Amino acid sequence: MRNKRIIGFDADDTLWENEVFFHRAQMKFMELHPHIKDPEEAIFQIEKENIKFYGYGIKGFVLSLLEASVRFSNNQPDLQNIAKIIKIGKDMLAQPIRLLPKVKDTLRRLSEHYTLIMITKGDLLDQQKKVRRSGLLKYFRSIEIVSEKNEQTYLEILKKNNISPEDFLMVGNSLKSDILPVTKIGGTGIYIPHKFTWRNEELDGTCDLDRFVELKAISDLKAWLENKI
Amino acid sequence: MRNKRIIGFDADDTLWENEVFFHRAQMKFMELHPHIKDPEEAIFQIEKENIKFYGYGIKGFVLSLLEASVRFSNNQPDLQNIAKIIKIGKDMLAQPIRLLPKVKDTLRRLSEHYTLIMITKGDLLDQQKKVRRSGLLKYFRSIEIVSEKNEQTYLEILKKNNISPEDFLMVGNSLKSDILPVTKIGGTGIYIPHKFTWRNEELDGTCDLDRFVELKAISDLKAWLENKI
Repeated sequence: MRNKRIIGFDADDTLWENEVFFHRAQMKFMELHPHIKDPEEAIFQIEKENIKFYGYGIKGFVLSLLEASVRFSNNQPDLQNIAKIIKIGKDMLAQPIRLLPKVKDTLRRLSEHYTLIMITKGDLLDQQKKVRRSGLLKYFRSIEIVSEKNEQTYLEILKKNNISPEDFLMVGNSLKSDILPVTKIGGTGIYIPHKFTWRNEELDGTCDLDRFVELKAISDLKAWLENKI
Repeated sequence: MRNKRIIGFDADDTLWENEVFFHRAQMKFMELHPHIKDPEEAIFQIEKENIKFYGYGIKGFVLSLLEASVRFSNNQPDLQNIAKIIKIGKDMLAQPIRLLPKVKDTLRRLSEHYTLIMITKGDLLDQQKKVRRSGLLKYFRSIEIVSEKNEQTYLEILKKNNISPEDFLMVGNSLKSDILPVTKIGGTGIYIPHKFTWRNEELDGTCDLDRFVELKAISDLKAWLENKI
């Protein structure tokens, strides 16, 4: 019998590698700009300032890297770096999908008993291309690409898909985007940490989280669900 | 009585000004790069090459302008221009909405008798912000932001909204994106030309269009629909 619970999955760094490519791009940027002190902090500050303009995703990240290159050029302007950063961005956008371990098998088995939906944020075209390339489309009833993951976004998705919050579980690697807003609206957050998680996805301070579980890997999900049923 | 026909509206250059801001940005780019011969053609070629990476929207356009600035810098590199182009992009993203004449009144009156949906392509966050700022949200049953407007996209939207193609009318300023694919799937295209339309939205050659009507302005829509009913 089909379980009435609906499972939402974050995609970047929950189903496939993502942040590691941003990390590598940042490393390349640092090699191109050896004179910038604490480049990681410089880039992060510019990215944060720019979210209101660019939102999330590779294009906004590349525009922020370009801005960092110009702003911290320290009278050593190097137009070659601009071309190289544009190239880094295109390489990121053309990057093949690298699924995380056991994702396909887990989704296949879960999709036999549960309705799965994917909820991801970022650039529309880029996220769509990743979903298509991933080969995972067939396991999901719907794909929701959103510009921000907050309580309102989740409420809209639940309403649109006719899901009660108490039947909704959200699986993801970001406490800020995947877990906290879902627990606040009465759903359950299943947190699966990933080695690389963007600083902006970290929660400030601690929070008291009911309706929250932490698993080591996506392959633990089925066992956890079966004990819970 | 509510009419069973559903009207889809394109947004950029159908409900509000859009292309004029790209046009102005391009003019500013040309002032910054007086040495580039036929800059319009140069930018268009780079934009076209880059659609597969960036899709549509301001962020991809700005990345293409930056690439044009570097590629055609002719050994006269100017890092100041890079900063200025980034600024042009942010100004575009923060641009207030300028509705086209009689849009609000037309939508208000049509929404009393028809179900309206908005179908627009571009950057997710940017399009969402424009919809919110426009004050037009209340007239639409749903807002569909897509990465490409082709037959498949329209078929998916019709399926999701439970609409038969013969009941569907699409209003827009692009023959390529708003009209042709809709007529091909059995809907009706209502073409309202706009002074500024991006070259990439033009059709190559001529086409024989059944189920097609051309109106001068959005304010003619109600009268046309009433004669047709």
